[in-house]
Amino acid sequence: MSQPICAISTAYGVGAIAVVRVSGEGSIALTDSLFHGRKLLSEAPAGSVRFGTIARDGETLDEVLCTVFRAPHSFTGEEAVEIACHGSLYIQQTLLQWLVDAGGRMAKPGEFTQRAFLNGKMDLAQAEAVADLIAAQSKAEKDLALSQLRGSVSGELNNLRERLLHFTSLIELELDFADHEELEFADRNELTALAAEIENKLQALIRSFRTGNAIRNGVSVAIVGAPNVGKSTLLNALLGEQRAIVSDIQGTTRDTVEDTLVIDGILFRLIDTAGLRNSDDVLENMGMERSRRAAQNAQIVVHMMDNIKAQSERVEANGTIIEVLNKIDLQPSEDRHQMIAISAKRGEIDPLKKELVRVARAGMENQAVMLSNARHYEAVCRAHEAILRVQQDMADGLSGELLSLDLQDCLNALGEVTGQITNQEVLTNIFSKFCIGK
Amino acid sequence: MSQPICAISTAYGVGAIAVVRVSGEGSIALTDSLFHGRKLLSEAPAGSVRFGTIARDGETLDEVLCTVFRAPHSFTGEEAVEIACHGSLYIQQTLLQWLVDAGGRMAKPGEFTQRAFLNGKMDLAQAEAVADLIAAQSKAEKDLALSQLRGSVSGELNNLRERLLHFTSLIELELDFADHEELEFADRNELTALAAEIENKLQALIRSFRTGNAIRNGVSVAIVGAPNVGKSTLLNALLGEQRAIVSDIQGTTRDTVEDTLVIDGILFRLIDTAGLRNSDDVLENMGMERSRRAAQNAQIVVHMMDNIKAQSERVEANGTIIEVLNKIDLQPSEDRHQMIAISAKRGEIDPLKKELVRVARAGMENQAVMLSNARHYEAVCRAHEAILRVQQDMADGLSGELLSLDLQDCLNALGEVTGQITNQEVLTNIFSKFCIGK
Repeated sequence: MSQPICAISTAYGVGAIAVVRVSGEGSIALTDSLFHGRKLLSEAPAGSVRFGTIARDGETLDEVLCTVFRAPHSFTGEEAVEIACHGSLYIQQTLLQWLVDAGGRMAKPGEFTQRAFLNGKMDLAQAEAVADLIAAQSKAEKDLALSQLRGSVSGELNNLRERLLHFTSLIELELDFADHEELEFADRNELTALAAEIENKLQALIRSFRTGNAIRNGVSVAIVGAPNVGKSTLLNALLGEQRAIVSDIQGTTRDTVEDTLVIDGILFRLIDTAGLRNSDDVLENMGMERSRRAAQNAQIVVHMMDNIKAQSERVEANGTIIEVLNKIDLQPSEDRHQMIAISAKRGEIDPLKKELVRVARAGMENQAVMLSNARHYEAVCRAHEAILRVQQDMADGLSGELLSLDLQDCLNALGEVTGQITNQEVLTNIFSKFCIGK
Repeated sequence: MSQPICAISTAYGVGAIAVVRVSGEGSIALTDSLFHGRKLLSEAPAGSVRFGTIARDGETLDEVLCTVFRAPHSFTGEEAVEIACHGSLYIQQTLLQWLVDAGGRMAKPGEFTQRAFLNGKMDLAQAEAVADLIAAQSKAEKDLALSQLRGSVSGELNNLRERLLHFTSLIELELDFADHEELEFADRNELTALAAEIENKLQALIRSFRTGNAIRNGVSVAIVGAPNVGKSTLLNALLGEQRAIVSDIQGTTRDTVEDTLVIDGILFRLIDTAGLRNSDDVLENMGMERSRRAAQNAQIVVHMMDNIKAQSERVEANGTIIEVLNKIDLQPSEDRHQMIAISAKRGEIDPLKKELVRVARAGMENQAVMLSNARHYEAVCRAHEAILRVQQDMADGLSGELLSLDLQDCLNALGEVTGQITNQEVLTNIFSKFCIGK
């Protein structure tokens, strides 16, 4: 497991510089076999940088800066070297090849972070946050990932788990003394109170997932309305580019057109849909079916109406509906029924942007710790079901054996999030979604 | 000039990590205003790495590694910090923005290298080699740029220039003593020998440009021949992808189709052309005109013939012609007239690849120092013209004044390459072609 692994850790492409990372036992000696500086890297102090060339068999590849890390003071917890070379693709790829030729192994996706986890540098929820941090496209996403990386989710769950573990141990101790029925090491009143507290907190975490997930994947915003009210024009105006085809012909948009946009640090996933009307056209009806589905699934539905023509279509939505009156450039409307008035064509859409941010923020408030990872959500749901069973067990006065089983279920589910309970398959699955080089 | 400048120095995009570079007086203090670690970066030894967070106004942006450099021991020769952050675009861009807000300035393209030049860390030819190294796509290009970065071109020219400078000084000294006509500080025989040597070396450098330029921009290979001999099929087979449209219809290719390919470390620029035949089609004739021009300009012309049909078109070329017999899968040909026999359709093209490498290599041999930069080439040509005039002056027994003018012309032209003689416009032009962050 500690064989040196190596990978290009910077983004793919030509840059001023690129960084190739080597980690694992012997990675300093491995790099030394190609590095030629004033002194060996093996002699360099931990956390220091050395200038030199990368060369073999008389061929010089590049002039580089090498940073030397020694276990356990590195990202992975292993000894490691970061080689900053010139950012030519040829140089990056040849350097990697030479390291492999010298005894390194090409790192698998996420393998550096996996080693950090296996070496106890971070727990599993933190390791997953590393990938989220790299993928962060907005302030909200970055905040969420960084908070998870710094242990918010792990801390909350570990705290609950440890207290529950304490009681579970006492109850299992009771089972060891099953002959002495009168013995109760675990105070049932305290356990009842703890179970209630845990149930409460898990419930809050489960609720937080809708928001956390929205931050990570974007708050979904479906733009719906009658044909030709300007839905595609609005999408284009929001994005600042000609993303969707716009024409005067009814039914121009068929497939839903999606794109993302960050406003005030919040990622929105905008969905432009086919206009809703009565039509016999098969293709148009298929499009409208998609529109209705998009409206039902979206967290925010922007229901557009035309300032000129009257409309009456109803929109079925589970999220928040924002009523928007478009084309105010054509005819000033005084009676706006508290609708947001815009001109998508002229790009006068600031009131709508503000409303989108307001609605999205309202959903994010008062959440101390948020779940954003589907795997965590699923495990916390199972922990919640188990703790509900524990509560029921106690209400029914069930024996310690049965209580203990449900407590174990809860403990295991909580432990899965932070990786205290895990298996190779889960790990492989998690880290395979990482980018290479992290 | 020493205000801290900052830029993202790694390739654009999402990676495991990204590096933001800050350079200039006060750049350590600037970074300290955002960095929160166990100690200030200002207290860190030169060439050491520190872990910490980037934060301001209570918002934490990321966990980072900062490498501290102190003048003059950095790439630019100034004090500098390299901040390795998580490779999210949001984080990279926000970090850059925060540095600018804190008093940094966004670096212009090539500004770090320009500062390295202005601070005497490298001469101009070396600075230009940095950009070439970053753009290197093949071993040959990398070798050429690295050799130039390490001073091969500069060394050769500086050596000639210094020796010439010595003589020029002596001749100008003679002019100061113009009253004493008999005085000759500069030995005319030695100067004659030196001028001959310089003329010789400059001539060799000028000749080397054709090769150096080919290495940098690719050895141009025009694929020409009658319609339907399989030119586009060959291009696709060489590239390993369906780059050019292939059909049985004569005249399928109209515009020349270009792409690059590296074989055995040499960059080739392949040019597929319209088939040559007698035709009344205006568009086809325009295409054929391009074919002929491509053949004339290419360093290598692959002249393709069909194994089945006889052909007789003549190809006008200035470069090396490789005669190729295609479609050997259809009918084995015994009498191949020393042609390279291939089947482009079946991808049996190895003999041609080997021949391309052999011809390209033959042109590259025996070149110690090579010019690859058009600006250097132009300056060396001027230096060469001046030294020819110097030789003529001496043969004509011209006075020291006239000799001195031509010597100065030669010195100036040589000095332009390494930047000893330069002006702001030239510098701006050179560095504006760099990528940002270098």
